[in-house]
Amino acid sequence: MVIVKVFCRFKRSYDDLLPAKNGEENTKQFLIEVVHILLNYVSKSFDRNTKVLDFHYPHQLKDGLEGFSLELSDNPENLEQLLVDCRDTLKYGVKTGHPCFFNQLSTGLDVIGLAGEWLTATANTNIFTFEISPVFIMMEEILLKKMYEKIGWPSQEGDGIFSPGGSISNLYSVLVARYYRFPEAKTKGMASVPRLVLFTSEHSHYSIRKAAAVLGIGTENVILVKCNERGKMIPSELESKIMETEMKAAWGGGLLMSRKHSVKLSGIERASSVTWNPHKLMGAPLQCSAILVREKGLLQLCNQLCADYLFQPDKHYDVSYDTGDKAIQCGRHVDVFKFWLMWKAKGAEGFEVQVNKCLDNAEYLYNKLKQRVDFILVFDGKPEHSNVCFWYIPPSLRELPNGQERSKRLHEVAPRIKAKMMEEGTTMIGYQPQGENVNFFRCVFSNPATSKADVDFLIEEIVRLGNDL
Amino acid sequence: MVIVKVFCRFKRSYDDLLPAKNGEENTKQFLIEVVHILLNYVSKSFDRNTKVLDFHYPHQLKDGLEGFSLELSDNPENLEQLLVDCRDTLKYGVKTGHPCFFNQLSTGLDVIGLAGEWLTATANTNIFTFEISPVFIMMEEILLKKMYEKIGWPSQEGDGIFSPGGSISNLYSVLVARYYRFPEAKTKGMASVPRLVLFTSEHSHYSIRKAAAVLGIGTENVILVKCNERGKMIPSELESKIMETEMKAAWGGGLLMSRKHSVKLSGIERASSVTWNPHKLMGAPLQCSAILVREKGLLQLCNQLCADYLFQPDKHYDVSYDTGDKAIQCGRHVDVFKFWLMWKAKGAEGFEVQVNKCLDNAEYLYNKLKQRVDFILVFDGKPEHSNVCFWYIPPSLRELPNGQERSKRLHEVAPRIKAKMMEEGTTMIGYQPQGENVNFFRCVFSNPATSKADVDFLIEEIVRLGNDL
Repeated sequence: MVIVKVFCRFKRSYDDLLPAKNGEENTKQFLIEVVHILLNYVSKSFDRNTKVLDFHYPHQLKDGLEGFSLELSDNPENLEQLLVDCRDTLKYGVKTGHPCFFNQLSTGLDVIGLAGEWLTATANTNIFTFEISPVFIMMEEILLKKMYEKIGWPSQEGDGIFSPGGSISNLYSVLVARYYRFPEAKTKGMASVPRLVLFTSEHSHYSIRKAAAVLGIGTENVILVKCNERGKMIPSELESKIMETEMKAAWGGGLLMSRKHSVKLSGIERASSVTWNPHKLMGAPLQCSAILVREKGLLQLCNQLCADYLFQPDKHYDVSYDTGDKAIQCGRHVDVFKFWLMWKAKGAEGFEVQVNKCLDNAEYLYNKLKQRVDFILVFDGKPEHSNVCFWYIPPSLRELPNGQERSKRLHEVAPRIKAKMMEEGTTMIGYQPQGENVNFFRCVFSNPATSKADVDFLIEEIVRLGNDL
Repeated sequence: MVIVKVFCRFKRSYDDLLPAKNGEENTKQFLIEVVHILLNYVSKSFDRNTKVLDFHYPHQLKDGLEGFSLELSDNPENLEQLLVDCRDTLKYGVKTGHPCFFNQLSTGLDVIGLAGEWLTATANTNIFTFEISPVFIMMEEILLKKMYEKIGWPSQEGDGIFSPGGSISNLYSVLVARYYRFPEAKTKGMASVPRLVLFTSEHSHYSIRKAAAVLGIGTENVILVKCNERGKMIPSELESKIMETEMKAAWGGGLLMSRKHSVKLSGIERASSVTWNPHKLMGAPLQCSAILVREKGLLQLCNQLCADYLFQPDKHYDVSYDTGDKAIQCGRHVDVFKFWLMWKAKGAEGFEVQVNKCLDNAEYLYNKLKQRVDFILVFDGKPEHSNVCFWYIPPSLRELPNGQERSKRLHEVAPRIKAKMMEEGTTMIGYQPQGENVNFFRCVFSNPATSKADVDFLIEEIVRLGNDL
């Protein structure tokens, strides 16, 4: 095994990385060994001859697998074992960058984003003040401005901050809306304001309901507005009920990078706030999400508490660059650098190509499935976005009349195929029920490494694994 | 310059990393070049002959510095430029791992934690289901159990989750307490419960007030309980007022790793919830924070919404390992691996040594300052934790009688020294006012690379920079 061979060259424990023991040289060698393991993994992630995952059940991982124990003790392990642990952690995980991983929206392994994340980890700073994150704070400002432009907000408007994910960004948007109408909710609490009701699409992300729970609005006060069969809110259903135009575009934000597809978000420039997750369609490594608020200053007013040990007003630079008080967090991970570096590497154009490719793949899958008798589309219309929902109908179900028996059996098809798929590790795709629709597959495209041949492979795998159900 | 020389060997743009153009080999070479830049930075971070920072004002960074422009365009940059950008991003940042960086609690550059973070970035997955994070989910369970043990909770109790930071963990703790007493707040909102009041220490972290604002309790309903001069809540001031024992130990959690110092947190086992930030005293790279809840099941009940496209009940494995619905987030960054790897490398013992060293440094600084006439301690007693607060009194102030004039001038001393310090880049330390105390320095020790000689250097630097004020 390469690891052991090379590793014999150097000392054996964490202590050997300390200055007293030639620490600098040992540190470099250790990190280079780690990087070799990582580069090997990167290559495998893109290799269609490797599996997407090597599945093991929770109890198997808990019990330990051939020299890989997850247990922790009071005593240190040697560095050689740590390298083996690193390798095995990757071995028993899921290759989310594999071209045949269709399971989630945050997929793909963007090499530039990865480099950015490695650098971010090395810089290991906290993006709450200019003082300790001067470059990253400026990059955040520049990226946010680009995002306001893409949304179409006038140049004097726009405010925002990167947050740990779309759900937290959505929480910010409801929080800011609450503050905008009822600023006293911040100081006097919800007891001081009328009972609030939140209107959202019946298909909106569950983070909106989580936000309602957290913010003290209550999940029962979330009114779900009926949607048409494409999942769009029906305006007449909304009537005059909406307290604030709250658009959720966390997933779709990437569409704004595409001249071809951005029209699908037309009207977004009228939104008071937008959640945009570059870690989805744009392929930035997780986590990378931004909450963008049209009205300048609102985010600061809504969240600031002016902690004087962090945000001293008597500093020697423009303290408006200490943006931390806009956040509901104190310490905040740097999520901007990888995104900034990706933008440098690709330009806006490169993102456009990438987004278009994802939507092309969705259209390709849709067209393929439409021609087949063994698949049924959940919605029979050209996909507007990068997801396609469908049922696979095994031969044994094809002659069954519609009705309870067929529904019951069809409901079990996707989970059973998925289980086999994971055990074999060849590909991964999500499934879900929705309202009256029994379990269907939901294929999402956001990995630029996925080719049309991979889409064909997915179809054939589903047929192979489900044919005898 | 090394970068350019080596880099001439390979192709010039992001496109050259794609499969069509020998992408695998180019990708490896690009990433190895990045790693060389990072390793060089790591060495510099530990080198006392380098500056802590190379300070520039916001407008200077905005305008661009010798070949380093932060601006983003529609067109791609070549890879060579990206490498230069990576180098410069580090060059103009702050070396938080430098032995003379005393500015923040999340400091240090733990090599094993760094390796863990690089691997996490490469795995690029989402820790919300066992399905796509099998190994990390199990590691989280194992780490959380170790943490419950260190707190002293009985083995059948304890629940928890890693969150994006201490403020979010603290928000969880208040949220869970609210749910425990008034579960209807989740569904019916705060309108359905009596007016809530939150008791906390007058010196508690501002995230408690942020949580009160977010959760709809209101910042004015946070009752600050008086503390003694050491900053501990005075029990008689609390009387029978507290609705729930809410201990905040985000920063101090690391003390539990030390047999010598854990006594300072005695009683913590009676807490209903604990926030513990391994990214502070234990030196894990940011972000690494956990919210630990004593009562099993509460966190899940409080936050679950059972989104059926993620948390399908009909999966082929034990779905209690799909822990994502305990979180207020949906996508969640993997913060456990680096911590797990650090624990493997050091053992609990290694953390103990590290924590003890930080507290030794604090005691060393305290003893040094106590002997000097040009420094005054804010609290004149042996530090219980790893922070020491003090004023430097320049010669021009030493003869001034106590009074408004002296206070006014002393208030300006720390900011002026800090500004010079940052411009020269030799060291960094925070300052703040607090109540009636004018600006004082607050030195925090959490970097294991810091030696007693570095503490001496800090004192001498403050004197050198402040002597003529």
